[in-house]
Amino acid sequence: MSENTCLEKQPLSQEMLDKIDAYWRAANYLSAGQLYLLDNPLMKEPLTMDHIKKKIVGHWGTVPGQNFVYVHCNRVIKRYDLDMILLSGPGHGGNFMIANTYLEGSYSEIYPNISQDEEGMKKMFKQFSFPCGVPSHCAPETPGSINEGGELGYSIAHAFGAVFDNPDLIATVIVGDGEAETGPLATSWQSNKFLNPITDGAVLPVLNLNGYKISNPTIFSRISHEEIESYFVGCGWEPIFVEGDDPMTMHKLMAEAMDQAVEKIKAIQENARKNNDPERPKWPMIVLRTPKGWTGPKVVDGQQIEGSFRAHQVPITMEKPEEHLSLLKSWLESYRPEELFDEKGTLIPELAELAPKGDARMGANPHANGGLLMKDLRLPDFREYGIEVDPGKTKAQDMIELGGYIRDIFVLNKENQNFRIFGPDESMSNRLYKVFEAENRDWNAELLDSDDCLARNGRIMDGMLSEHMCEGWLEGYLLTGRHGFFASYEAFIRVVDSMAAQHAKWLKVCNQLTWRRPIASLNFILTSNVWQQDHNGFTHQDPGFLDHIANKKADVVRMYLPPDTNCLLSCFDHCVKSKNYVNAIVASKHPSYQWLNMEQAVKHCTQGVGIWEWASNDEGQEPDLVMACCGDTPTLETMAAVTILRDELPELKIRVVNVVDLFKLESNHKHPHGLSDSEYNAIFTTDKPVIFAFHGYPTLIHELTYRRDNQNVSVHGYQEEGTITTPFDMRVQNEIDRFNLVKDAIMHLPQLANRGSYLIQKMNDKLVEHKQYIAEYGQDLEEVRDWEWHTPDNK
Amino acid sequence: MSENTCLEKQPLSQEMLDKIDAYWRAANYLSAGQLYLLDNPLMKEPLTMDHIKKKIVGHWGTVPGQNFVYVHCNRVIKRYDLDMILLSGPGHGGNFMIANTYLEGSYSEIYPNISQDEEGMKKMFKQFSFPCGVPSHCAPETPGSINEGGELGYSIAHAFGAVFDNPDLIATVIVGDGEAETGPLATSWQSNKFLNPITDGAVLPVLNLNGYKISNPTIFSRISHEEIESYFVGCGWEPIFVEGDDPMTMHKLMAEAMDQAVEKIKAIQENARKNNDPERPKWPMIVLRTPKGWTGPKVVDGQQIEGSFRAHQVPITMEKPEEHLSLLKSWLESYRPEELFDEKGTLIPELAELAPKGDARMGANPHANGGLLMKDLRLPDFREYGIEVDPGKTKAQDMIELGGYIRDIFVLNKENQNFRIFGPDESMSNRLYKVFEAENRDWNAELLDSDDCLARNGRIMDGMLSEHMCEGWLEGYLLTGRHGFFASYEAFIRVVDSMAAQHAKWLKVCNQLTWRRPIASLNFILTSNVWQQDHNGFTHQDPGFLDHIANKKADVVRMYLPPDTNCLLSCFDHCVKSKNYVNAIVASKHPSYQWLNMEQAVKHCTQGVGIWEWASNDEGQEPDLVMACCGDTPTLETMAAVTILRDELPELKIRVVNVVDLFKLESNHKHPHGLSDSEYNAIFTTDKPVIFAFHGYPTLIHELTYRRDNQNVSVHGYQEEGTITTPFDMRVQNEIDRFNLVKDAIMHLPQLANRGSYLIQKMNDKLVEHKQYIAEYGQDLEEVRDWEWHTPDNK
Ligand SMILES: Cc1ncc(C[n+]2csc(CCOP(=O)(O)OP(=O)(O)O)c2C)c(N)n1
Ligand SMILES: Cc1ncc(C[n+]2csc(CCOP(=O)(O)OP(=O)(O)O)c2C)c(N)n1
Ligand SMILES: [Mg+2]
Ligand SMILES: [Mg+2]
Repeated sequence: MSENTCLEKQPLSQEMLDKIDAYWRAANYLSAGQLYLLDNPLMKEPLTMDHIKKKIVGHWGTVPGQNFVYVHCNRVIKRYDLDMILLSGPGHGGNFMIANTYLEGSYSEIYPNISQDEEGMKKMFKQFSFPCGVPSHCAPETPGSINEGGELGYSIAHAFGAVFDNPDLIATVIVGDGEAETGPLATSWQSNKFLNPITDGAVLPVLNLNGYKISNPTIFSRISHEEIESYFVGCGWEPIFVEGDDPMTMHKLMAEAMDQAVEKIKAIQENARKNNDPERPKWPMIVLRTPKGWTGPKVVDGQQIEGSFRAHQVPITMEKPEEHLSLLKSWLESYRPEELFDEKGTLIPELAELAPKGDARMGANPHANGGLLMKDLRLPDFREYGIEVDPGKTKAQDMIELGGYIRDIFVLNKENQNFRIFGPDESMSNRLYKVFEAENRDWNAELLDSDDCLARNGRIMDGMLSEHMCEGWLEGYLLTGRHGFFASYEAFIRVVDSMAAQHAKWLKVCNQLTWRRPIASLNFILTSNVWQQDHNGFTHQDPGFLDHIANKKADVVRMYLPPDTNCLLSCFDHCVKSKNYVNAIVASKHPSYQWLNMEQAVKHCTQGVGIWEWASNDEGQEPDLVMACCGDTPTLETMAAVTILRDELPELKIRVVNVVDLFKLESNHKHPHGLSDSEYNAIFTTDKPVIFAFHGYPTLIHELTYRRDNQNVSVHGYQEEGTITTPFDMRVQNEIDRFNLVKDAIMHLPQLANRGSYLIQKMNDKLVEHKQYIAEYGQDLEEVRDWEWHTPDNK
Repeated sequence: MSENTCLEKQPLSQEMLDKIDAYWRAANYLSAGQLYLLDNPLMKEPLTMDHIKKKIVGHWGTVPGQNFVYVHCNRVIKRYDLDMILLSGPGHGGNFMIANTYLEGSYSEIYPNISQDEEGMKKMFKQFSFPCGVPSHCAPETPGSINEGGELGYSIAHAFGAVFDNPDLIATVIVGDGEAETGPLATSWQSNKFLNPITDGAVLPVLNLNGYKISNPTIFSRISHEEIESYFVGCGWEPIFVEGDDPMTMHKLMAEAMDQAVEKIKAIQENARKNNDPERPKWPMIVLRTPKGWTGPKVVDGQQIEGSFRAHQVPITMEKPEEHLSLLKSWLESYRPEELFDEKGTLIPELAELAPKGDARMGANPHANGGLLMKDLRLPDFREYGIEVDPGKTKAQDMIELGGYIRDIFVLNKENQNFRIFGPDESMSNRLYKVFEAENRDWNAELLDSDDCLARNGRIMDGMLSEHMCEGWLEGYLLTGRHGFFASYEAFIRVVDSMAAQHAKWLKVCNQLTWRRPIASLNFILTSNVWQQDHNGFTHQDPGFLDHIANKKADVVRMYLPPDTNCLLSCFDHCVKSKNYVNAIVASKHPSYQWLNMEQAVKHCTQGVGIWEWASNDEGQEPDLVMACCGDTPTLETMAAVTILRDELPELKIRVVNVVDLFKLESNHKHPHGLSDSEYNAIFTTDKPVIFAFHGYPTLIHELTYRRDNQNVSVHGYQEEGTITTPFDMRVQNEIDRFNLVKDAIMHLPQLANRGSYLIQKMNDKLVEHKQYIAEYGQDLEEVRDWEWHTPDNK
């Protein structure tokens, strides 16, 4: 459409305002229709209870405000030729987004059954929040959505994630005033300290200040105008207020506010880009104060609905058919559907032309279906970052070596600008030193000369102490087709348990939708783990994220516990290439023993579980004992236990098994990675004792091996014991140390009879010696510190 | 001490400032000493590497600022006779709190071995962050602490929890500028909207703006003064700025700021209390900007330490003994310990007198050891709230009935003001209607006439949409000796997974400290659970909090799944009386079937697991089949399956088992509630098939019953399937419905041979019928909706 004929590009006219209002009425009508109507979608017949759903489930209160924002976004998209997506914080009003994408046509393109006519409208109404239909939230099923808004609080974080490295994208984000009270949302206003006006796009928050949440008022609606203004100014925003309840006045104010905001954004970007000036500007935002349930029923059953918390869900319950039916009827009629839809039930062309065209429609914008835009990463050959290994003698810091590989991911993808790493001020602490050779941290607040690796265009997003932001930004970045990972202290990843679970749910649903293209996996590196505490203690010990992940849908989740550097490189390379998974890697950051050279590591990690022949002495026979381990520290202690057992009881046939891919333990009927029973038995035997040293809570191994033939398994793992102490003592306190493993092995080998007793006594003595030594010297026994792997014939 | 002789009550003099500085130097010296010194605590001998710890672990950067706050709190405590506690947000600097409680004497009272002399000082230094010693954080071991600060973000929430209903208490809370970036902390500034100046105490936040976190600057330190000020004004605070690095200037500024803050607090309270004016005032807070690692080493190894992120942990690594030893020596000497401690190593009397006396010392304040102050709740007899039950026919809403009991807890404890309930705007949604008959919600922002049950002195804390605040406030309330519970949507309790875990860890440690008196349990009611979704869907389904809790230390955690109203009353009554536990109750809020009359319920819940004889037909014989269930919905489906089985296969001997106390399934060796193997076998048999319908993820049952004899168990539970659909369809999608249970039972009874095939066919037909019906009508089959319990002889 040329500038001349595009109404939106002209000065704001009454005609335009009228059309906007009509379009908004159409959206409101369709949103209410979805809540109530099973049939008779355009009310051409007299409305009866037969046309009404038996169970009315969904939300109304938030909807008119969100419809209002949508239509005004449409106008500026056309006026300024914008590339814009919309995130709905209060995603419980999902009917609003369906209504709008239906009006603009993007919905019917994806779901041809929901056609833009009376028949399609009827189906759209029926399917909403209905068995075998579509969810009531802005779910993956909803075109244009990348923020479901089921669990509230992440809309702004997702929006920022979306615009990083998307300089031409504007993410408008509707924030619920209730949502704004959550912790994650409250801190996410600060994200503007990490936005580069040259290389990133813009986020335009619209605070949907409708005054209420479920049944309480909101804090923002009950503080003074000055306090609201101060708050947002303090957060670095320039708030524009749009307040009122008269629709036509409000359309004018909103149109002006949107113009002002967009022009401000454009001016900021133009200045920054022309003058190469990345300094932090004051970004605009909008505070939109309207009544909750605006335009809905005023009073029902003698109680105020519009403008009150009672508008939150369904405003008319239909419990009193007579009375409620006529209320519903006059409410729906108030939108004058007959003026909006033609006799076929199609939006009239004068209104339809208000929607942007093609990919400019927010329901069709490819950024909201990121897989469409995703380019694979260019990856270095991870084998080249491997280290030489003399097993059980060489030490290295796995995370430091991984850093080298990641550094070169930055280098190789400089051009595509589609890779970032995320962490709550822990990248250094987590030993990702080498990434700083190629990349800086992102920082758009004030810079000092003394600052270390901070830059306006850094791609290491670790400048904010918030696991919520790391997770939310990363999710937004991935959902819009890019790549990255989140490196966290293992214990504090639990701060985002619920966010990770929600993302796993999102992916599970996407896997059922052919039109949602695969996106890069959500990768976690959990380090500074339970066995690696120095400065910290009990509060920093929680390996339970694995248990949490294990409960999610099998086709979505993966867990890796590489025992050394070469394995970590192999696992990470695998994860960073994968799509649509949630991958959790537990990694070691301290100097630790190395076991496999690169060739062995690739084989081992590809299989996910394997017998370490070079450490075993069962030589193709049935072993007496399986010593299994999973995780770096358990592997060390198992290997140390094996040296003791082989030295002391050389006739014992011991098989050493190491597990990298935890889901190998699960049945192949339950997880795609699971071993078949015969494969499992070939490794773990059907009945020989398995002494299993595990990184996390023992119950996870119990859970995964629940149905396996061999139930003669004794699992050692974290028992919720520990405080500040030596590394080895942490293991002793949780009985995962070599001495306790040896004791347990002997106790599982009744055939040794009395022969084992002396060794048990020796182990007990060692444990006492250990305790006395550390209490005196504050460090571990020399034999522990200096331990090296050996076989009896090669001491 | 009389006013006249109390130096603090005089106008601020140079003498006073000098003394404050000396006291601060003493605290800094003791804090640094804890990090480094194994011996030679007062450096009377020349310092050698033998006096230095082998492994130096702890934090320095945050310490001097916190010591600074402590000594200034001491001054105002004495000046104004305050009842004050101190919460340390950046709890990683735990040495600061040990140093100060040691100086004031409260430490040695609790730990007599750490005496106030050279020998005690040496022990105190050695034990810090040392094996068999004390943690580096403000852990339970630290007198005066109720906020460990290991996982950052909860200090302000805890502080508000502490002052609710403590009108004379001031909680000073040091907030890390890094901590302030976390979501929970960011939203917690809003807590002042819930503080009543008449009936609650005051929180005095001190933002410890030292500019850095681990290795990044902080956002607050890199925005303008105007932005900081706006931010806090917007949050409803009146910030007082204290900024600089010259100690003597800063002491003066800080003393004045503290006076100003305390006087403002007193004026607010006086006005409110005299004039009965509970309107929200602007509470004071302090922004304290000082260099990180203030007074510590300036430059080490050519790099700036003081005033940089490098001061965060240990400023001098001691890796270059020669050079570092002399740096350490001159740093420690800079505090002039010889002026501060006498020849015996005791703080000189002129300084010792600066500390408050007795319980006024912050390390001895009983509010920080809440069990000392805790009064038991007066509780109504829960039996009186029970309902009449015709089993499997009566329906009731468990949460509504529970509301009646809780209402009367409010009534009975009106005087003691020591009970509150917490929730994120969900009390109504969770059907706690009846509590509103006796109590209001707390709200101290603007009130409107149209507001519903909001009041300035409400005790229902559900006005803020933040699970973090609910949890943090409640923890603070409990830790200071009061009672309450948190009712949450089951799925969104996972937002606070990590907080609940940290509290469980806190309790576990307290159980080992005789001086920490038991406090009321942390009680969760999880409702709107996975099986009870209407308006919501997949995002609202997560029963995994139980799995999370199950991993915590057995002596601390408890889980209850009452199947009906009378059982819920019994369980809740038990929990609310208990001490030092984390109790999770899963409860139903929708109209649901009732099974047990009150007498039966008490017996059943007291035993925690039991055979429902009246529903079984094995009559004292070995059954063919055990139908087990846990949770309200699983119980319903199991009972419905039993009616089908008994009608169709009357010769089958079926035992019905219901589990309320989930830990009964665990071995008695692992959990105090666990059944012994023989008790367990008497209920579940050793080998008969057990069809177990469970509320949550099946793996939790696998985990708990891992070592039991009877491994012939088939668990049905949540399989991560579901969206918006009918209640019964949710069960079908997860195969926990009656039809699937019947099918599974038959498949576990090979003795039925072909006899079961027809019933399987019938069940499959039912499942198809169900799907078709709901897709058409949007509600469940009539036979499902109208189902009632019966026995074959009493249809
Ligand atoms: C983390 C979280 N806690 C609780 C809820 C339950 N909940 C659903 S909607 C809602 C109120 C939302 O209020 P607001 O953000 O103001 O949205 P609106 O008024 O636009 O509906 C609440 C508390 C939730 N969805 N997520
Ligand atoms: C939730 C959480 N995430 C990460 C950490 C790791 N961590 C420990 S200290 C610290 C920096 C704290 O900075 P600040 O609050 O400014 O404290 P201070 O400067 O006073 O040491 C971080 C990120 C943590 N303890 N908790
Ligand atoms: Mg709202
Ligand atoms: Mg700091």
